Amino acid sequence: MTSEPKTVFVGLAGLGNVGAGVYKNLLKNGNLLTDRTGVRIQVRRIAVRTPEKHTELQVPEGMLTTDWRDLVNDPEIPVIVELIGGVTEAYHLVKTAILARKTVVTGNKALLAEHGHELVALAEREDVPLYFEAAVAGGIPIIKAVREALIGNHIKAIYGIINGTTNYILTRMSEAGLSYDDALGEAQVLGYAEADPTLDVNGWDAGHKAIVLAWLSYGAWLRPEQVHVEGVTEITQTDLRFARSMGYVVKLLGVIRLDDSNRIEVRVQPCLVPQSHILANVHGVMNAVAVYGDIVGETLFYGSGAGQNATSSSVISDLADAVDNLANEAGTNNGFIPQGHYGSCLPVDQTVSRYYLRLRVDDRPGVIASISKIIAGHGIGILSLQQPEVDPSADADLMLMLHQATYGTMKKAVAEIAALECVQTTPVLLRVESLKGRGA
Amino acid sequence: MTSEPKTVFVGLAGLGNVGAGVYKNLLKNGNLLTDRTGVRIQVRRIAVRTPEKHTELQVPEGMLTTDWRDLVNDPEIPVIVELIGGVTEAYHLVKTAILARKTVVTGNKALLAEHGHELVALAEREDVPLYFEAAVAGGIPIIKAVREALIGNHIKAIYGIINGTTNYILTRMSEAGLSYDDALGEAQVLGYAEADPTLDVNGWDAGHKAIVLAWLSYGAWLRPEQVHVEGVTEITQTDLRFARSMGYVVKLLGVIRLDDSNRIEVRVQPCLVPQSHILANVHGVMNAVAVYGDIVGETLFYGSGAGQNATSSSVISDLADAVDNLANEAGTNNGFIPQGHYGSCLPVDQTVSRYYLRLRVDDRPGVIASISKIIAGHGIGILSLQQPEVDPSADADLMLMLHQATYGTMKKAVAEIAALECVQTTPVLLRVESLKGRGA
Repeated sequence: MTSEPKTVFVGLAGLGNVGAGVYKNLLKNGNLLTDRTGVRIQVRRIAVRTPEKHTELQVPEGMLTTDWRDLVNDPEIPVIVELIGGVTEAYHLVKTAILARKTVVTGNKALLAEHGHELVALAEREDVPLYFEAAVAGGIPIIKAVREALIGNHIKAIYGIINGTTNYILTRMSEAGLSYDDALGEAQVLGYAEADPTLDVNGWDAGHKAIVLAWLSYGAWLRPEQVHVEGVTEITQTDLRFARSMGYVVKLLGVIRLDDSNRIEVRVQPCLVPQSHILANVHGVMNAVAVYGDIVGETLFYGSGAGQNATSSSVISDLADAVDNLANEAGTNNGFIPQGHYGSCLPVDQTVSRYYLRLRVDDRPGVIASISKIIAGHGIGILSLQQPEVDPSADADLMLMLHQATYGTMKKAVAEIAALECVQTTPVLLRVESLKGRGA
Repeated sequence: MTSEPKTVFVGLAGLGNVGAGVYKNLLKNGNLLTDRTGVRIQVRRIAVRTPEKHTELQVPEGMLTTDWRDLVNDPEIPVIVELIGGVTEAYHLVKTAILARKTVVTGNKALLAEHGHELVALAEREDVPLYFEAAVAGGIPIIKAVREALIGNHIKAIYGIINGTTNYILTRMSEAGLSYDDALGEAQVLGYAEADPTLDVNGWDAGHKAIVLAWLSYGAWLRPEQVHVEGVTEITQTDLRFARSMGYVVKLLGVIRLDDSNRIEVRVQPCLVPQSHILANVHGVMNAVAVYGDIVGETLFYGSGAGQNATSSSVISDLADAVDNLANEAGTNNGFIPQGHYGSCLPVDQTVSRYYLRLRVDDRPGVIASISKIIAGHGIGILSLQQPEVDPSADADLMLMLHQATYGTMKKAVAEIAALECVQTTPVLLRVESLKGRGA
C-alpha cells in the first residue's frame, strides 16, 4: 500500500437526492475506501438536467454536463452510475453504456422491473457487470445477501417491508392513532413521502422491488401486469385495532415465494403479521426483508430503505465491487446471475393464505348466520370471529379470521357477502401471513 | 453453460455437526451451486478422528482419512475447509494449508481470536484467501456484510446477540418464567446447549466472535485478556421482572465501538435493551447483529446463529467465493482486509453507559439516603428508583436506573454500597444500552 493507488474514474448520471449523497460520501470516506479497495474511486463527470440547481455541492468547474453521453463517450470513464430515475431516458442511458462496454451501477427499480430482462441479457452478452444494490431496500444489502451470501440456498420465500413511506404511515396510524391522511401529511412534512406519493402508497414502488427479488430468486422476470399490487390507502384505524386485539400488526409486505409446483408467487399487499415476529417490530421508515433459504432457514436484513446517505452506501458498495472487478481481467465475483427460469408465474387468484375480513353489518338477528353460510359454502373455515358491542341503533363491525383459502375463492365469497342486504359499505379483506417458509 | 463445468475439489477437515452439514448440503444443492457458480464444488477427502463414527453419512469408500495432511498434501485439492474446532490442532492445520498455498475456509472463532493476527498476515503474505463467514453468527452473513456491503462506511458501533444458547436461556427465563438452571436444562435437552455449556454461558463464545468483528471494523486484533466478558449465570427472575417493568429486556450483547479518541471498546455483557428495539425482539436461539455505519445508519442482520444447516450455508457461501476467486488468476473480490489499526483498546473501566443496579436491602429508614449519597458522591445521577412494597419483616429489593458513568467509577460506587451494613448479598449491576450509534 505504499505505492500511489490507481484511480478509477466514475461518471455519475443524476445529482438528485441519492446522486448528491454518492458524490458527498465518496469525498467524505474516500481515504477509507482507498485503504480498503486499494483504488481511488473518483467522480470525473456528472450529468444533470439543470446545472444551476447544484451550486450547493461546490462541484469543481467543468465537472457538470447536461448530456449523459459525455460520460459514456469518455474513454477515461469505465464505470457509469445511473441515478436519474424514471424509465425512458434511464433505459437509453444504461443500454448505451453497456453497449460501450462500461460497468453500470444503477439504483433504478422501475427501470429493472420494466427492462431488466433485456438489460441483464445485454450486460451478459457484452460481458460487463451490472450492479443494482441500491435499487432494492436502500441501504440494506439485500441483493448481495441473496446473490452471494445465500448462494447455496434455494430461496423458499421472501417477505419484505420494502417501502419506507408506507411503513411510516402504518406505524404512525398504529402507534399514534393518526388517520391515514394525517399520517401521510406528516410523512410529507418530514420528507419521508414525496409531494406526489402515488407510487409509494399504491404499492408499486414495492412492486418493482419485488419483481427484482423474484428474478434473483427464481430466474424469471415477471411482467408488472402479472404482479398483484395493493397499497395502504384503504387501511383504517378500525382494522389496525382489530388486528392488534388479535396479536397482529398490519404491514405492507412484498411476498415472493415458490409453491410445490415451482410456480412463482409475487404480490404486494397489506398483511396481518404476528406481533411477536421480528418484521412486526420494524417501525417508521425502516425496511426489512426476511429471506427463507432451504439450508439457512430464516434470515432477515434490516436498515434504512431510502434516504440520501443510506442508499449511497449501497451505490458505494457496488462501486467497490466494480473497481475490484475491473482490476481482474479474467472476471467477476458479483454473485450469481440466475441461469434460466426456475418456475412460472402463479396467478394471484391461486395464491393461498389465511385472511382477515371485516364487515360493517346491520345489528340484527340472522346476520352472522347468512355470512357464515356463504363462507362455509366456499369450503372456508372460520378461525375466530369478533363483534364488539355497539350502540343498538348503530351498524356493527364484524371481524372474521379465516382459514387458508385461495385468493380467488375468497374474493368470490366476499363478493357474495357484499351483496347481502345486511352488509353495509365494502368489506375489508386482508391477508394474514404466518411468516414461515413456503406453505406454512 | 452448455460445456461440462469445471470441478473444484475440496478437502474437508472435521465431520462434526457443521462438517456433516457442509457435506450433505453440497450434495443436496450441488446442481443449484453449479448453475450459479459455473463450477462443480466436490468434496474429495474428509479428515476425521474416528472414521467408524461416520457411517451414517454414507461417505464413499476411501474418502475418509484420519490425517488432515492427506488433504493439504493432495495437489488436486486447492481448498481446505477447517471445521475440526479447538485451537491447537486447527492452528497447525490452517497454517500448514496456507503455507501450502491452499485457500482456507474456517468456522473457528476461537482459532481466529487466538491466532487471527498471525494467520491473516500469513495468508496475505502467501496471497491466498482466508474465509471465515461461519465463524461469527452461524448462518448470518455478517462478515460479508461488514467487509463488502458496508465497505464505504466507518463502523461506529456493533451490538450483537451472537450466542444462541444464552439467548435461548434468557428468552425462556423471560417469557416462561423459568429459572436459569431450568432454562439451561431445557436448552441441553433440545440440543441448543452442549453437555458442557461453559464457553456459551460464560460469554466467551460471544467474546471470540466480538474480537473478530472488532478486527474487521477497526483493524486491531485485541487479545482475549483485553476484552471484558461476562456471561448470564448471575441473571435472576427478579432482574428480568424489574427490567420489563421499565420497558427493557435483558440480552447478552457483544458491544464493539469506537470512541471519539479512536479507542476501541469490545465487551460482552448482559445488557438492558429497550423493548421496542428490534434486538429486543430476537427470541430463542436466533442471533442478530446491529451494525451502525456512518453513512448507512442503523442496519441489522438476523438469522440462526448456530446449527448444522445454517452454519453450513455460510461455509458454502465462502466456498462459492473461493472457487470464483480461484478462477480469477489476478485476484480477489473478498471484501477488504483491514490495513493497519484504526485505534487502540479502551480499557473496560473507561467505557461509558447507563446502568441498572439492584440491591437487596434492609427495610428500614435511612437506607435510600445512604445509598444515594454514595452514588451522588461519585457524580452519578439517578434516573429512576423502585422499591416494591414487601412484607415488613423481609428484606426489600431496591432497583436504581443510573445516568451515564464510566464502568470504573460505577464499580467503585457499587463496592462502597456493597460494604454498607444495610445491603444484603452482592449488588447486581447491569449495563443499559440505548442502542444508538457511538456515544448515544
